[in-house]
Amino acid sequence: MSSLSSPVLASRLAALQARRQRLSTLSQRPLVLWSGQPLARNFPANTYSFRANSHFLYLTGQSLAGAALHLDQGQLTLFIDDPEPGADLWHGPEPDRDTLAQAMGAIAAYPLAELPAHLGEAATLPVLDWPQRLPHSPAHWHQQLALAMVETRLYHDPLALGEMEQAAAVSVAAHRAGMAATPTANREAQVRAAMEQVILAENLTCAYNSIVTTRGEVLHNPHYHHPLEAGDLLLADVGAETAAGWAADITRTWPVSGRFSAPQRDLYEVVLAAHDGAIAAAQPGVEYRQLHLQACRLLAAGLVDLGILRGAVDHLVERDVHALFFPHGLGHLLGLDVHDMEDLGDRAGYAPGRRRSDRFGLCFLRLDRPLAPGMVVTIEPGFYQVPAILESARRSGKYDDAVNWQRLEAFGAVRGIRIEDDVLITNQGCRVLTAALPTGAAAIETLVQAAQ
Amino acid sequence: MSSLSSPVLASRLAALQARRQRLSTLSQRPLVLWSGQPLARNFPANTYSFRANSHFLYLTGQSLAGAALHLDQGQLTLFIDDPEPGADLWHGPEPDRDTLAQAMGAIAAYPLAELPAHLGEAATLPVLDWPQRLPHSPAHWHQQLALAMVETRLYHDPLALGEMEQAAAVSVAAHRAGMAATPTANREAQVRAAMEQVILAENLTCAYNSIVTTRGEVLHNPHYHHPLEAGDLLLADVGAETAAGWAADITRTWPVSGRFSAPQRDLYEVVLAAHDGAIAAAQPGVEYRQLHLQACRLLAAGLVDLGILRGAVDHLVERDVHALFFPHGLGHLLGLDVHDMEDLGDRAGYAPGRRRSDRFGLCFLRLDRPLAPGMVVTIEPGFYQVPAILESARRSGKYDDAVNWQRLEAFGAVRGIRIEDDVLITNQGCRVLTAALPTGAAAIETLVQAAQ
Repeated sequence: MSSLSSPVLASRLAALQARRQRLSTLSQRPLVLWSGQPLARNFPANTYSFRANSHFLYLTGQSLAGAALHLDQGQLTLFIDDPEPGADLWHGPEPDRDTLAQAMGAIAAYPLAELPAHLGEAATLPVLDWPQRLPHSPAHWHQQLALAMVETRLYHDPLALGEMEQAAAVSVAAHRAGMAATPTANREAQVRAAMEQVILAENLTCAYNSIVTTRGEVLHNPHYHHPLEAGDLLLADVGAETAAGWAADITRTWPVSGRFSAPQRDLYEVVLAAHDGAIAAAQPGVEYRQLHLQACRLLAAGLVDLGILRGAVDHLVERDVHALFFPHGLGHLLGLDVHDMEDLGDRAGYAPGRRRSDRFGLCFLRLDRPLAPGMVVTIEPGFYQVPAILESARRSGKYDDAVNWQRLEAFGAVRGIRIEDDVLITNQGCRVLTAALPTGAAAIETLVQAAQ
Repeated sequence: MSSLSSPVLASRLAALQARRQRLSTLSQRPLVLWSGQPLARNFPANTYSFRANSHFLYLTGQSLAGAALHLDQGQLTLFIDDPEPGADLWHGPEPDRDTLAQAMGAIAAYPLAELPAHLGEAATLPVLDWPQRLPHSPAHWHQQLALAMVETRLYHDPLALGEMEQAAAVSVAAHRAGMAATPTANREAQVRAAMEQVILAENLTCAYNSIVTTRGEVLHNPHYHHPLEAGDLLLADVGAETAAGWAADITRTWPVSGRFSAPQRDLYEVVLAAHDGAIAAAQPGVEYRQLHLQACRLLAAGLVDLGILRGAVDHLVERDVHALFFPHGLGHLLGLDVHDMEDLGDRAGYAPGRRRSDRFGLCFLRLDRPLAPGMVVTIEPGFYQVPAILESARRSGKYDDAVNWQRLEAFGAVRGIRIEDDVLITNQGCRVLTAALPTGAAAIETLVQAAQ
């Protein structure tokens, strides 16, 4: 508290209050929310680093463990117990309940035991470690509250954007460090370490488990043991999270040697064209699904130019031929969660009344809404050669007219490429929050080579 | 698997089989164990990095999520489901059930749905995320199994010691990196980042949340935001964990400036004398509680020499005067858990029939057993000035004969010092697994200054 000058503090409290007022107006019912608790790793005293529930963070700005909030007509009440006697010996002195309440603009604060008396007709959202003491509210209240929360959190206020810009800046620095560390690294783990060091040194955390791999065709590859070979591409999907919980999500793909081979560069340029096209088209009113399909067409067109695909681009995309190489969606919402509000299922990603497609090329699309100012989305097209997908497609004979399997072999060394940026929709169009990190092949090569 | 030559693999399997045979002989009842599952961080797909249950790791050597084992008369059966269809697109190809079973020497492997038919009279140990499908066994079976598990895991075999030596070596390197990073660091987070980078670069994880702080008087300080000032001591308690789950646990305390002030060095030498005395006395048959009390006496004697305490050393320790400055125990068991088997409460730390003392100077002692070959314990005396403890002691007037409060003020800049090593009890005496990291004040100064 003492580090905040009072105008900064006042503006922060006003922003939090505006969020709470907006949610109350939309939900038209009191709500109660649990913040979560540290989760034990291998024994009770050895916990994973605590991360509060995102809805709680959104409304309070504070990462408090073992706390509940009650919100009624914009008025916040905090429920939290005093630390156990002697806890300060182990974990240091903590602010008392009233200080915490003041820092978030709560009108009152009570021990947790007082919560049941305040529940009334409050709706709830289940938190992952929801304790028994907080009852679930009826399903239709939950549904109504979830939709109100989505409508509130979809459009980011300046307080949120300031946090996301900080997360983006640190993530950009982490990617630069990863590129610079590559020439002297022997395996993936060393590059990951160089990237996460930047995030830790800023006293931030990773928003998700980093992907740093030469096996980019495994979309969420959790391994870091592969050696780095001169002919490999390295795919790094690494993002920071601020202390208040706001995320960045960046992917870059670079050559281990500092130089793309001709086939690598050709495919990189195809993915980059899809990436750039999507960002150029992102503006209020545009359907994200259309951005996705446009990226699919750009990708298919590029693969036709390279001789990998044959046929009319529109027809290839209608048949989901592009999805053999780009089997995921163009991106997702970004905010407090790296897939923002995915704890509410598809309620955030999909506009009311819309549902996921059964099509192979669309079923993994996490976002299907018209874009609007204040939304932050990722744009992350990719090209992958997933053996299970390609072998089965080839065996089936179904794509023999559309895929030149022999020509594809010339690109055998390219396992996975993804280029991902975080894009804020503005009144005028969009702004790339992660623009400080280059995407062009030549610029990427320069960043990798700079360390040699 | 393919990276292991077959004699290495055979010896590994033999060691695992010997663990299982020993446990079965001691427990005299079949057992069933759940490995655990990844825990969601803020939404289901965004999980904390998975860490399998330690008992499961001990018996199988494999970190598998969502698996159960059944052990009867030394014979292991594995229960695990095949990955969801399509999971390999996201997480890569996984070995199949039979390959996993073979790698741990199981005699058979089945889907999880087959487990209930194999339960019979099996005893269980509850795992933190114990699923509903595995019933709890009666309390007396649980108790019997817990004691058999303690008796098995207390004494480390060569397979375990090889892992712990790897964890120790990487942790030593991390501490060296932390010292080297200090002169150019501005705040705690940067030193923490330099240390954890070493652990991540080796593709290992941290065995516990790192403590890297200038506020060493907070014993488990979880914050890293303080600036580093030239007059500060930095306390770092950081340890690596191997892929198979084995831990190291090291603490060093060094001057930010690279040079201890005279009062800092005086107190450092007192803590080091307690540390060295405990290690010199550690051997089979010695009671760990006696090592703790000897360290308390050495600490008290050192504080008498410095004029901070007054009176006969034995009497000071009997009155717990030393505990005003050393309020925790000398150390704990170390193995797969940094506090080994603390998930079983005090059953591992305390010999059967023993219980924690009510004394302020003994109640935090986590270990009260006679030492025996194969045990690994930490030795970690410390000196802390905890304001809450010292202010209350001073206000009470109770210690005015024993503490020279005025003299203590000359040491005001010393908030916390701890020196911690990992010690294997051998037939001959003991071996310090973390001996490659110096403890002497001059050597520490050299390591910090080397980077300047």
